Amino acid sequence: MSDGTASWVSASARQDGGSRPTVLFAMPAELHSRVFDANRLRAIAERADVLGVVQEFDSAAAREALARTDVLITGWDAPLLDTEVLDRAPRLRAVLHAGGTVKHHLTSEVWSRGIVVSSAVEANSVPVAQFAVAMILLAGKRVLPIAERYRRERTGFDVEESFPGMGNVDKRVGIVGASRIGRRVIELLAPFGYEIVVFDPYLDPSEAEALGVRGVELEELIATSDIVSIHAPSLPETRHMIDARLIGLLAPGATLINTARGELVDQDALIARILRGDLFAILDVTTPWVLDEDNPLYAHENVMLTPHIAGSLGTELRGLADVVIAELDRYRAGEPLRHPVRVEELARTA
Amino acid sequence: MSDGTASWVSASARQDGGSRPTVLFAMPAELHSRVFDANRLRAIAERADVLGVVQEFDSAAAREALARTDVLITGWDAPLLDTEVLDRAPRLRAVLHAGGTVKHHLTSEVWSRGIVVSSAVEANSVPVAQFAVAMILLAGKRVLPIAERYRRERTGFDVEESFPGMGNVDKRVGIVGASRIGRRVIELLAPFGYEIVVFDPYLDPSEAEALGVRGVELEELIATSDIVSIHAPSLPETRHMIDARLIGLLAPGATLINTARGELVDQDALIARILRGDLFAILDVTTPWVLDEDNPLYAHENVMLTPHIAGSLGTELRGLADVVIAELDRYRAGEPLRHPVRVEELARTA
Repeated sequence: MSDGTASWVSASARQDGGSRPTVLFAMPAELHSRVFDANRLRAIAERADVLGVVQEFDSAAAREALARTDVLITGWDAPLLDTEVLDRAPRLRAVLHAGGTVKHHLTSEVWSRGIVVSSAVEANSVPVAQFAVAMILLAGKRVLPIAERYRRERTGFDVEESFPGMGNVDKRVGIVGASRIGRRVIELLAPFGYEIVVFDPYLDPSEAEALGVRGVELEELIATSDIVSIHAPSLPETRHMIDARLIGLLAPGATLINTARGELVDQDALIARILRGDLFAILDVTTPWVLDEDNPLYAHENVMLTPHIAGSLGTELRGLADVVIAELDRYRAGEPLRHPVRVEELARTA
Repeated sequence: MSDGTASWVSASARQDGGSRPTVLFAMPAELHSRVFDANRLRAIAERADVLGVVQEFDSAAAREALARTDVLITGWDAPLLDTEVLDRAPRLRAVLHAGGTVKHHLTSEVWSRGIVVSSAVEANSVPVAQFAVAMILLAGKRVLPIAERYRRERTGFDVEESFPGMGNVDKRVGIVGASRIGRRVIELLAPFGYEIVVFDPYLDPSEAEALGVRGVELEELIATSDIVSIHAPSLPETRHMIDARLIGLLAPGATLINTARGELVDQDALIARILRGDLFAILDVTTPWVLDEDNPLYAHENVMLTPHIAGSLGTELRGLADVVIAELDRYRAGEPLRHPVRVEELARTA
């Protein structure tokens, strides 16, 4: 709703207990309804007095709500919280962002006023890591190309002979990037018995050890892993970090999984190697995100393509709400937030 | 090797330490080399004096080896250990089976003589459970039909609109059968945040609670789960346990996963429901195991078919060796075996 009032909070759910903060949502109404389903709205209404959902801070209704707001719950495309808006929000103590980066809607002035900020970026890493884990399990056993061949040939065949080295025992998984997602993949893989190596230029050996894995150079990772999963950030210096030379070093029968960004891989070199027939790829991201119709990756038996779906989609957006609700509990209890955003992070690439 | 001698154990690896048992392998040579790779053979040679690999117990070489055997390591298609053979194996103290059931090669006489028996059936459950977990993760998000549509249409589309309810949050997984595999699936799913319900006529509520799940009737499981994964045994009374009526009760948009046996499901009813377009299926087993060429399951966007590959294949056979090596360690240390087979189990359906 754009008028700043909330029709979905029943009057009976509002209580005037002194310790209950007032909460205002600032995000597009359509997004709001996808992140906060009925159960999560009920959970928030049990904890706070909800003032409504606004998409801007200028209307009379939005101004009135903002003046009474203790906690602002923001989402993607939230309106900007600049000095002028903050001046009209004298009670504001916390911004809980139901999304990843806050740099598009928060200014350093927020922190200057002692307002605490948290982000649900942690929740965003969950679906991507789960997607990668599922694909690693399938890659170790060649499940997708076997299914593809079975569908095409419609007859039985010796899968071990057709796909030498198949099976999830004695497999090395190489994680490129000890990012939030990369670390979560490592955690989730623990019960599955893989040998895991990781490359990250900013990961020191003791940190790798704490993760239960071995840090290696990128070249060693690429040349010795049965399955390589990319979880590095997309930065100018990481463009084509998996370049033609490294693609050439991938072992015959290896699988490259990319759920990060297409730009991290020299796609032309990858396609050339795929066409040689001795490499497998599972690509949720490509360059461009939707490939041209005649791209050979679409039809190749050794390739699984998905249209950038590993991140939070559908019901997974509610995972963002769950982080916000847990942060709201900590705020009410006077505890530190678990996923605080510091002002320095505004300047960093998110 | 069929002559009962072992060429792959170097003389230097054999030591005459009194506490080292003698070990004889009894299984087809081809299977032996797939289960026991060089690393596992080395591990056994470090622990025991290996007498060789036999495929029968009648040749002079096999008799000579058997007479000196403390521990027999058997595999699928191992020769029968009847009274006559046992009479020629006076030192035999343990049979460690690198496979599932022992009922095809052991007789009750083995137990009568105080020989301990263990099985690696536990290892066999690992790949199936991992396969099911990967497929559950993909099913919650509709990854496979999305990939299929992307490949076919070669253009971007709104995945949330095309596949309503997609996403791995707020999903209920129904496990049919608290079998060894079913329980392992439940354990492996723990970090993924699903609500899990289980149906098993022999599971009492306190056992379900210990597993961290809720036991429900089959009908409730079928009607309320977003993803149903079948892990029940194939018995006369479980034939078509997922019958036409239950298939009709599956929720629109639900996914049925079968890694157990095709006979558990009324396949004609399943096909009819699939063709209606509101059900998804991931089938590693069908009736017959390789479907006729014109079966509509091959081409349907909502169906993933694999040719009975969820069980131990390829490198996964080495998981059987790992169980045997751990049991050998326990045997040498005088500890009880972890996966003992009792004589009563010979009579049961395995």
